[in-house]
This record gives sequence, C-alpha cells and structure tokens, in this order.
Amino acid sequence: MKLLKDLTPLSSAKKIVYNYLSNYLKEINSVKSVNILNALNKISAKEIKAPIDLPYFNKASMDGYAVKAENTFGASETNPIILDIVDRDEIYENEAKKIFTGEKLPKNANAVVMEEFCNVVNGFLEVYRSVHPNENVSKIGEDVKHGDVILKKGEIITPYHLNMLASLGIKEVEVYTLSFGIITTGDELVDLDSVDINKDFDHLISKGKIINSNSYMLYGLVKNLGFTAKIYNIVEDKKQSLKRAIKLALKENDVLLITGGSSVSDRDITVETVEEMGKILVHGVNIRPGKPFGFGVVENKPVFMLSGYPVASAVQFELFVSRYFKKRKKITLPLKRNIASELGRVDFVRVKVDREVEPIRITGSGVVSSLTRCDGYVLIPENVEGYEKGDLVDVYLI
Amino acid sequence: MKLLKDLTPLSSAKKIVYNYLSNYLKEINSVKSVNILNALNKISAKEIKAPIDLPYFNKASMDGYAVKAENTFGASETNPIILDIVDRDEIYENEAKKIFTGEKLPKNANAVVMEEFCNVVNGFLEVYRSVHPNENVSKIGEDVKHGDVILKKGEIITPYHLNMLASLGIKEVEVYTLSFGIITTGDELVDLDSVDINKDFDHLISKGKIINSNSYMLYGLVKNLGFTAKIYNIVEDKKQSLKRAIKLALKENDVLLITGGSSVSDRDITVETVEEMGKILVHGVNIRPGKPFGFGVVENKPVFMLSGYPVASAVQFELFVSRYFKKRKKITLPLKRNIASELGRVDFVRVKVDREVEPIRITGSGVVSSLTRCDGYVLIPENVEGYEKGDLVDVYLI
Repeated sequence: MKLLKDLTPLSSAKKIVYNYLSNYLKEINSVKSVNILNALNKISAKEIKAPIDLPYFNKASMDGYAVKAENTFGASETNPIILDIVDRDEIYENEAKKIFTGEKLPKNANAVVMEEFCNVVNGFLEVYRSVHPNENVSKIGEDVKHGDVILKKGEIITPYHLNMLASLGIKEVEVYTLSFGIITTGDELVDLDSVDINKDFDHLISKGKIINSNSYMLYGLVKNLGFTAKIYNIVEDKKQSLKRAIKLALKENDVLLITGGSSVSDRDITVETVEEMGKILVHGVNIRPGKPFGFGVVENKPVFMLSGYPVASAVQFELFVSRYFKKRKKITLPLKRNIASELGRVDFVRVKVDREVEPIRITGSGVVSSLTRCDGYVLIPENVEGYEKGDLVDVYLI
Repeated sequence: MKLLKDLTPLSSAKKIVYNYLSNYLKEINSVKSVNILNALNKISAKEIKAPIDLPYFNKASMDGYAVKAENTFGASETNPIILDIVDRDEIYENEAKKIFTGEKLPKNANAVVMEEFCNVVNGFLEVYRSVHPNENVSKIGEDVKHGDVILKKGEIITPYHLNMLASLGIKEVEVYTLSFGIITTGDELVDLDSVDINKDFDHLISKGKIINSNSYMLYGLVKNLGFTAKIYNIVEDKKQSLKRAIKLALKENDVLLITGGSSVSDRDITVETVEEMGKILVHGVNIRPGKPFGFGVVENKPVFMLSGYPVASAVQFELFVSRYFKKRKKITLPLKRNIASELGRVDFVRVKVDREVEPIRITGSGVVSSLTRCDGYVLIPENVEGYEKGDLVDVYLI
C-alpha cells in the first residue's frame, strides 16, 4: 500500500507522461493530411496561417448603392443629392451603382448608401443621407489578414474552422491520428453483451459481479479526441492472460489503455505485468480521485494504467490524455459552498456552474452520475486545504 | 426591403419553427434504437430511468477488511481490537474478511477498516482504529437509485452516459436520426474543389467571386447534432435551377438547409421559390446578425432559409436548429465592456469568457473569425438598449 508521501506529485507525473507523448508522436508520425470535412472535431497538428486576406476585395455589407462617399456629403431628406445610376465595374464623379450585400465594390467606390436612404426618381438616384468613407463596406482583411493564425496546433477543428478554411481555399489540413486499444481486466467483470439485466440481475448480485462499463466510456472519450478506439475482450486477473492481451493490442494500436487491476494494492497485477514487459514511468499520483494511476512503456508504446473505478479512470484520462491534446476552457466564478481538501494531494472536484460554482455532493469515487451531471471541474492544489464559500475558483469546462 | 417593424420577433419565430419541428419529428418517426457505442454524441430521443440500483450490492470503497463496525468500537493504536480473519461470503461476531475496493461486502459486514489501520499478527487481525457503520462502503443505490432519470430526452449522449448505461445493463438507446440536405445558391460562389488559391486568386478578385464556405460549416454543425448531412452542388441564382435542386434534396433528406439568396432584398429568389413550391411560415426576424432568416415547408418537409453571410447563417442555425435539439449551458458573469444594442431587435453578441465576459470586437457580420474565437454568446433582448460594464449577463456556452 502506497502512502501519500510515496506518491508522485501530479505536476511531475504530467510532465513525465506529456514528455513521453511528445517524443512518441514525433517518432511515429501520427500526423495525417485529410480533407477538411474529415477534419471535423479532430485535433489540428499544425498551425495554419491565412494565405490571403479575407475578404480579398472590398464588398458591400448592406444592400444599396455603391458611391464615392465625398459625393454624398451634405445630403438630407429635404436636400437630397442626385447621382447618375450606372452599371459598370467602375464609377466616376457623381455616379452610383446598385449593389447587394456581399458584392464587390466597383472601382473608385468607397462606401454604400443603404437602400432605405435613397430613391430612384426619373432614372436618377436621390440620396437622403450622407455616408462616410468605408461606411457599409467590408474592407479587405477585415475578417482575417494574410498571415494571421486561423487554426492553432492542438486546437479542435470546429464547424466554424471549416468555414474559415474553405473561405481561404484550404482543402486539406493536418490532424493527429492515433489508434487506442482498450483493455479491461477484472474477475468481477461481466461483458455487457452477455447480460440480460432482467434475467441475470439476481445472479450478478449473488456473485458480486458488475458489468464492464469503463471500456464504453473510454471508447467515447478517445473518439471525442478524434482518434480511433478498439475495445478488447475482458481479461481475467492473471498475468499470462494480460500479457497475451497486451501483446495483441500493442500490435494493432499506437496507444494502450488498461483499466482495472491498477490499484496500489497487493492485487495489482497490471503494473507488475507491464513492468515485466517493459518499464513503469509513473505509479501512484497525489490526485483524488485517481491515485492509482500508472504509466508505462512496452515495445516503445505508451501504456496508460487506469483505475477500475469509473470516476477515477475518467479523471486519469482527463488529466493525462485529454488535457495533453485538448485545452479546456477555464472560467472563474465564486464558490457556492465550502470545499474541503487535504494538504499534499490535488483534489479533482466535479462542479456545476451558473452564476456560482457548485460542487456536486458525492460520497464515493464510484459515483458515475457525478460525471454525467457536471459542467466542469475544479482542481484544488496540493498546498491548499480547501476553498471557502465566495472564493473565486477556476473551473475547467468539459 | 423589410423594415425592423415588419420583422417577426425572435420568440414568435422560434415558436413557429419549434412547433413545426415537434410535429414533424413525431410524424416521420425520426427515432431509432442504436447500440450505445453508436449513440455517442447523438441526441437521446427518450428519457431513460435506471432499471436497477447502482451499485446493486454494498461494496468496499477502500482496500482493507470487511467487519461489523460495532466490533471495532474502542479500538486504538495502544489498544487494538483483535478479530478472526475468515474467507467466506459471510462474517460473524468478531470476524473480518480481507476485501478490495469494489468487492461485494460479505453478509453481516457493514464497514471496511482501511488496510493502513490494521495489521495481521499471528494470523489474527489487529485493528487500530474504530469504524462507524457504512464507513468505506459504497452502499446500494449510492450512485443511482432504481427509477432515477439517468438520461433525459434531448440530452447529448456523452462518454459518461455510456458508462452509466453499460453499468445498468442497457445495450441500446433511442436517438434522433435526421438527414439534412445542404443547398447553397449564389452566382458569386465558386466551389472549393475547383479552386487552386495560388493560381486562381487574381481571377477571383477581378471577378468578385468568393469560395463557398457555408456548406462546410453547416455540414459540421449538423454532424455535431448527431445527424447526417449531404452537401449539394452550388446552385445558380435562377428559380428553375433552385427548384430542381430543392426537389432532389427533398427526395433524399428529411430537412433542408438553403444558404444564400435569402436576404430581404429584391434579389431574394430563395424565399420566392420556396413560396411557389410550398409555403413560407417565417421570413425576416428581429435578430442581428441573422435578420433575413426564412422558414418554410415544401412537400411537408421543413426548409430553413439561411443567410449567405457565414456569421448570420451560423447564428440562424444556432437559434433555430441547434437550440431546438440541444440545450446550451448558461453561465452568468460580469461584463468587461459596455455593449450597445438597439431597441426592437435581439442582438447576438459573440463573447469570450474567463472571469468576465468580453464581447469580441467585430465590424461586420462577415467576420468568421469571431466564431472561431468565441466561447459563447449573449442575447440582448429587444427591450434592452444594451448592457454596461460590470452588469451580470447570461452567456450561452458553445
């Protein structure tokens, strides 16, 4: 049993894992160029700068008439200014051209008079209000300037990025591609597909068996990083079986997640097995929930050893995998209630937010409903004994 | 040209659209039962209640020894209590059984003494600290009680829901399935695939052409609601061409999005075409950006007429499509700067949030970068002239 003082501090553990991942990603060339439609929700592997200005010509931002602003000075309801209406790609002194929102301004025009402030009378345009230069004009580079960063490395590619990329004529982007193998161990586990909850419920209770659920969660978490995930059959708590499963999954994937069997207790066969097959870089971290986290390397591939407890494994995945690839939005709000913590460990507190931050009341790390109900989390550092009602705290939104 | 006073209020427009969608979804049976893995990120079409308690037996929440709590009362470092160690599924007076986190408690046990507070001496267990009943025990129903709602209708299914569903033995869930056809009109548009930005850039500028980008954004927005999307070829601004495109897309899809050609101006062929083919229920809404929104029905299928301007069409999609299917998280924070608005219209203001709400400075509705940079938005109601620095405002996170 590892005591608190033997645990690796979260910051050191993250550094070890992140460093390994950074080198690994370079080494295996996990970057692929894909069509922008296929890049949706994937992680950008390269910073992209705008190759051109956007818009790349001055355009009308309103329906109306393109004019030289100077020609409208002094116009009013009672003293309209009269302009010639023309239909060419350039205008001259005292001329106007009908224009629709989004259309390119004719040469020499520098403003648009909105439709409702003019009127066509006997083939001439009466203008009832003056416009200043650039009024109702989307100017070159107003949205994006040539060279502006439009997509950062590590950013999740949103539908709005797709718009931006297409507007700039960019058809492909580089994204991270990784395949994750998901192994679950535990003699107490039964497979979801083999269970009929109506028929088997009493049997599960009498045998103390639970249904494997972590594989499904991890599958979803991996998918939501834009990666592929493969779930392997449940492995019994025997080293030989686990070794076989690890070998197979390593052959088929870039990264391994093993859940269950990694508590810092004497039943800890996952860590021992990984140690025999490769090396352990982290085992036991001062985070709660999530203490029995392990990270190792087998055949040069990263192996994450996650807790069998759903909330603990979700926390471990968040801090050691998701957060490596994906920034979380951080907001700061006052606490609605005190939260206690213990010196020497980092507490991962699930919270709801509205105008305050409300810690979700929970009694155990097995409480999955705390995850489906939370909006984000607060990390209480190891040197803080807790926060008081009203304190401003940082919330990472999930 | 529609003036502000002729526009439909946002609330009425939403009611019309949402009512139509609700009836339509019932009518076409857009609900499908899928394996939970395939339900990830889709929208739940049915409330799901827990069929059983979770956990469904009392289990250890710590590694240690299962005991009858009463047997440990009075235990201390100097005066340990001695218990017999047994290995059966039930314990009796003054007995203890070794137990690991997650394991079912033996019959008659009601607490777990943590490993570090006991010691095995000569085959007997010395207990150095008393436990109260239920200490270190995850009790039946602690996570979820039989009958609790674990997934609401309309909720996006997260990886955490997958965990919950699997834990409860639920293999399939009902989700909304809809296919969206995406039509873009506009003579000013060129297709991304046909453009080589290095070679064609000068040509695009001289001809005043822009690259179609809305289709890509709408594709992503639809996908992120868990629906399927199909992009059709760009349609020229001619009623006959648009009619043909609408007919084809209606045959192949449940819902139509048409972008471009829907401004409230005299070039407004989309609305006219839809009116000729069916009926218009909404045209022109007091929202900015997004005013030229249209909603109609052709062959009993909903047709959304969105602006050609990316930001306006994104706003329209958010308010009239996304928000129907998906709740947005709302948080309340103080404003960092004044925001002005105009009485009589609703303003959709893109913002960044941290400890304050910062409106993104923009000059036009064409500014796509305001979307890729924003964390959420503030809606300024029609009866409010704006907000001042320091005012608490509601932000919908996207």
